[in-house]
Amino acid sequence: MGKAHALAYRSAGAVFGDLPPVRLARFCDTPPERARTLSAQFGFDAVTDDWTALVADPAVDIVSITTPNASHREMALAAIKAGKHVHCEKPLALTLDDAHEMEAAAREAGVRTLVGYNYIHNPMVRHARKLVADGTIGRPVHFRGWVDEDYQADPDLPWTWRSSRADAGLGALGDLGCHLVSISHVLMGAIESLVADTQIIHETRPLPDGTGRAPVENEDTASAILRFANGAQGTLCTSRSAWGRKNKLDWEVHGTRGMIAFSQERLNELQLYVDDGPRGEQGFRTILAGPEHPPYGAFCPAPGHQLGFGDLKTIEVASFLRAIAAGEDAFPTFTDARAFERAIHAIDVSAREGRRVTF
Amino acid sequence: MGKAHALAYRSAGAVFGDLPPVRLARFCDTPPERARTLSAQFGFDAVTDDWTALVADPAVDIVSITTPNASHREMALAAIKAGKHVHCEKPLALTLDDAHEMEAAAREAGVRTLVGYNYIHNPMVRHARKLVADGTIGRPVHFRGWVDEDYQADPDLPWTWRSSRADAGLGALGDLGCHLVSISHVLMGAIESLVADTQIIHETRPLPDGTGRAPVENEDTASAILRFANGAQGTLCTSRSAWGRKNKLDWEVHGTRGMIAFSQERLNELQLYVDDGPRGEQGFRTILAGPEHPPYGAFCPAPGHQLGFGDLKTIEVASFLRAIAAGEDAFPTFTDARAFERAIHAIDVSAREGRRVTF
Amino acid sequence: MGKAHALAYRSAGAVFGDLPPVRLARFCDTPPERARTLSAQFGFDAVTDDWTALVADPAVDIVSITTPNASHREMALAAIKAGKHVHCEKPLALTLDDAHEMEAAAREAGVRTLVGYNYIHNPMVRHARKLVADGTIGRPVHFRGWVDEDYQADPDLPWTWRSSRADAGLGALGDLGCHLVSISHVLMGAIESLVADTQIIHETRPLPDGTGRAPVENEDTASAILRFANGAQGTLCTSRSAWGRKNKLDWEVHGTRGMIAFSQERLNELQLYVDDGPRGEQGFRTILAGPEHPPYGAFCPAPGHQLGFGDLKTIEVASFLRAIAAGEDAFPTFTDARAFERAIHAIDVSAREGRRVTF
Amino acid sequence: MGKAHALAYRSAGAVFGDLPPVRLARFCDTPPERARTLSAQFGFDAVTDDWTALVADPAVDIVSITTPNASHREMALAAIKAGKHVHCEKPLALTLDDAHEMEAAAREAGVRTLVGYNYIHNPMVRHARKLVADGTIGRPVHFRGWVDEDYQADPDLPWTWRSSRADAGLGALGDLGCHLVSISHVLMGAIESLVADTQIIHETRPLPDGTGRAPVENEDTASAILRFANGAQGTLCTSRSAWGRKNKLDWEVHGTRGMIAFSQERLNELQLYVDDGPRGEQGFRTILAGPEHPPYGAFCPAPGHQLGFGDLKTIEVASFLRAIAAGEDAFPTFTDARAFERAIHAIDVSAREGRRVTF
Repeated sequence: MGKAHALAYRSAGAVFGDLPPVRLARFCDTPPERARTLSAQFGFDAVTDDWTALVADPAVDIVSITTPNASHREMALAAIKAGKHVHCEKPLALTLDDAHEMEAAAREAGVRTLVGYNYIHNPMVRHARKLVADGTIGRPVHFRGWVDEDYQADPDLPWTWRSSRADAGLGALGDLGCHLVSISHVLMGAIESLVADTQIIHETRPLPDGTGRAPVENEDTASAILRFANGAQGTLCTSRSAWGRKNKLDWEVHGTRGMIAFSQERLNELQLYVDDGPRGEQGFRTILAGPEHPPYGAFCPAPGHQLGFGDLKTIEVASFLRAIAAGEDAFPTFTDARAFERAIHAIDVSAREGRRVTF
Repeated sequence: MGKAHALAYRSAGAVFGDLPPVRLARFCDTPPERARTLSAQFGFDAVTDDWTALVADPAVDIVSITTPNASHREMALAAIKAGKHVHCEKPLALTLDDAHEMEAAAREAGVRTLVGYNYIHNPMVRHARKLVADGTIGRPVHFRGWVDEDYQADPDLPWTWRSSRADAGLGALGDLGCHLVSISHVLMGAIESLVADTQIIHETRPLPDGTGRAPVENEDTASAILRFANGAQGTLCTSRSAWGRKNKLDWEVHGTRGMIAFSQERLNELQLYVDDGPRGEQGFRTILAGPEHPPYGAFCPAPGHQLGFGDLKTIEVASFLRAIAAGEDAFPTFTDARAFERAIHAIDVSAREGRRVTF
Repeated sequence: MGKAHALAYRSAGAVFGDLPPVRLARFCDTPPERARTLSAQFGFDAVTDDWTALVADPAVDIVSITTPNASHREMALAAIKAGKHVHCEKPLALTLDDAHEMEAAAREAGVRTLVGYNYIHNPMVRHARKLVADGTIGRPVHFRGWVDEDYQADPDLPWTWRSSRADAGLGALGDLGCHLVSISHVLMGAIESLVADTQIIHETRPLPDGTGRAPVENEDTASAILRFANGAQGTLCTSRSAWGRKNKLDWEVHGTRGMIAFSQERLNELQLYVDDGPRGEQGFRTILAGPEHPPYGAFCPAPGHQLGFGDLKTIEVASFLRAIAAGEDAFPTFTDARAFERAIHAIDVSAREGRRVTF
Repeated sequence: MGKAHALAYRSAGAVFGDLPPVRLARFCDTPPERARTLSAQFGFDAVTDDWTALVADPAVDIVSITTPNASHREMALAAIKAGKHVHCEKPLALTLDDAHEMEAAAREAGVRTLVGYNYIHNPMVRHARKLVADGTIGRPVHFRGWVDEDYQADPDLPWTWRSSRADAGLGALGDLGCHLVSISHVLMGAIESLVADTQIIHETRPLPDGTGRAPVENEDTASAILRFANGAQGTLCTSRSAWGRKNKLDWEVHGTRGMIAFSQERLNELQLYVDDGPRGEQGFRTILAGPEHPPYGAFCPAPGHQLGFGDLKTIEVASFLRAIAAGEDAFPTFTDARAFERAIHAIDVSAREGRRVTF
């Protein structure tokens, strides 16, 4: 993910003509040798293996944090304290308390923040938001979302820090589910309350050193039924143990006049159904990403040529650079991200306590 | 639906060589003129517009009930009392109490019963069950199902009996959701408990006579999170107001070694992923229905030629005729159907009372 | 295929209310025992193992011929001579001369004929024809068609009569390619000229008795570039050795204002693109078969429930019965079929002689 | 396309750790103001509006040519003469004679060349090549390819230089068809002979200045039937007037044991069918691009996250930089490209002269 950020910061200015100039000033990784190699590869001005030095460095204006989730809080707080703008990968924090602390610190310091919920920067998601806002599908009344991968599907995989609440926080919800919440916020607005259940499929996993088995402490799957503030309902499901799914973040917005559906594994397509024209010629349209879906055209002048994962990250970075230059907030800030992540923690609470959680 | 039954009883013996002979003995409909026309079209021996005469007629061995849901109970009880085997469309009854009464009557009378949950007779669903039973995808640990149509999506549709609890019972759950439960039973076994929520999207609809608007009393959408007796979890979602969905009954069975996925709108296809062979060549396989998936071959000797909705009904009818001849139960009996329908009523209860319902 | 006809004649009247009454009068097959068994299963009045008796029987008005291709000519001529209407499976004949003789005999005798090009009876193909005729996609300017199966893909399959020119006539063109021609005629009109090439992939196959190998005399694949009388161009490709393809008869009609695409393996779907509305919301629409696409509604009142292969045959039979009753030609007659089959023989000639064939 | 090259040269070193360092030395465009703006945006060291100065500049080692096709020859020859390595967009040249001259000049000068047939650098195409080479689908016996767009579909589009033989050379074949040839070469080897036909759909177009209409001189569609040197046959079809197709470059390789299919509009997927395992579980597998398909992993460590058009260009650039550093040829050189483009010119000749063209 660090590489994805480096590539995006490196490319953004060349892709978009309206950005302030950017230098890749300081690179930090460990061990030092690896840091030096990668810094050279990515084209940074200088390198360190001490992140505290980096965040304090006057040459640095923006700190990008792409380390494991458990370190986000400490690094972000230090960077904020040093007056840096902070671009942090998702999830923002392991706990809502941490997220709140980070959000408050940033607000107090007056720095700009951005959290890497990059799927909402997809031109097709932006177009979906526009269609919803325009009323093309009428009033949005229902939302369905799933996000599945299979990186924890194999029963024989060894135990890692990912299975530890202390190190990783939530499981599928923290890795995957929070992406879906970010999209539901963009398309449907805030969640008001929910009921949920979670499941640990593989209760223990073998320790890598062969000394036995250790418990899996966080969820392999989660399912939630949502009520949105706008009166709509919906569901949110996630699994990290869904064989064959590689990045299957799919969603549907049901409206009173039509429907929009999307699948991240085909991120350049949007499905649109509108109750319009002769019934015998109605059907879901497969819209292919093209220049009509900004900022696709900044990458390619011809439709159907496909953006990739890295391009979405470049769009995200550009939005941050533009916001900082304009003295405005990008989206989603730490505050926005905390609102997203409130939902995944509520799902966890609802499942553990067997009750509806209302915000 | 009456026509679908008539066609299926007419064809079943010709499709399958192993069935007892069947005559289309008596046909009932109203008004009399319509009954006569359709009886002649379908090829019945005789016609009536009095269903009580039909169920009492000694020429009749099996009574097929395809009337609106509210009449199932009375007709089935009368037919059972007359000692007939009963083939009833789904849902079996408006309430669980009714279903229980019908089930008990049939058991006591020693007649055979079958409820028209016809999607479980699809050769591809049968093949899926076989794959699950064989362990091809390992242990089944998660289930997802959706069933959406759009027959109540249009906000301007007039009010009908479908919106009345007294006349129609449940809404999307009774029309659509129960199908999904039948499939989850076949693939995953019994449901142990659930939490759910439901939603009425269009709270009132215009009365057809223009005198005002009347309330919609039953759910447009329902969402449930399931715990199965085998330890698996899952979700079940349904909407009758999902624009563009015509019969989108989709489901996934997640196993510890693979996944099966299916979509009723492409009922001749099964998606199978197995963690097998080189990772770089793994992917969901689209299996096309063919003679390897019995009883497809009874309809067509070549794969890829497609069965239709009517063919599934013919398979259902054949299974009933075969069971009666063998003195065995077909599947699903009234007892099985009551178990299915228990789930949709539990979803309704959970939604209204805001609590987990455990069976 | 005989079973498909029997089932269709058995069902047609019950499906469609406007047909003259039909009896399954005489059934012929060999050996006699098999004939008796199947006759009883299908519900025929009487049975024979002598087809000459059947075609002469005064109880018979329509003769349905579903025997191997090499016997079509003799049987059809005898039936025509006896004054029967003839429903013959495709291809009509092994050679164009045979087809011509059969067509002339039928015309002279004044009997009605129908050839089993049943895919053109698909409601979605009929709808496509309507869209083309209506100008929905502008002027049709290009056609692409493919029809692939894999029943001769396995290199180890034994030699059969299918590989013999004398017994089977053409290869993939006769089994599959002619279906595509029937569709191109319906959608684009007559072919004016073509250039083509063919290929025998497996030049010999092992004899079933283990005595060696015999040559494959007819094409495994064929490819043709077509010029239509209306000025359009197009291609037609077929293979009987295309692994994984079960009935992949796909086609596209390119118009000056839109495109229609279809795939027989998903025969209840039509893809439609029209240059209409905002460019950013354009896309191929997947239209699902429903009551708006006659005669789908005769089988099922709800869209998305899917017709099957057998249903297409029932529509074909109904069109024949209706035509006979009305004293009109059904479509396609022997004359129409000869026009279709002229194209597949021309492809063979073009490939063998290396020249353009013009009609 | 110039931007795509600039972005790719800018990113390649950061994506791949094994490349020699690269500077964006000189940028040329017209008018000067535009050149200055874009040069700054892309991050070049210096800018000019005189391409002859650029190709002569000692600071330049590699010249990348992304200008309209008609200028490739002159620019490439000048660059070669100046001893530069040349990276030229496809098609290499308007005529085969030009291509030959360019190829000969490069060979004589000993410079490295690369032509921008970038779809062959897609990890999924590389994987397909590997599968063919490994014999996974047996012996490749048939190839089908289509490449369609709709940028010339609208009958009302004004006349441009694209319609002129002198300015643009071939039509759909030069823009699109040559891509398909590059893929067929990679997967099937050299073409031996072909027969073809072409079509101009819109014979004239309105002049932009409103003074009348001008003729379209090059083909809107082309269709060819190929014989490969390895004995296989196949087809190649292209249209620039195919409504709804945005970059639909699809192909199939039919083998004696399986099939591979691909669609550029879903460039991160490969379809694979192998006759392996139980027939009832066989089907086309949708393989999603992931780290098992090098060099996908250089962009993203997780499968299913999707590469885009720009990433394919980055892979292409990396292969050129690596080849130059190693003193080897990249693929495809001018010589390779001339072999590809020989086929599209042969299609044109075959269509115009009505004869088979043999190489």
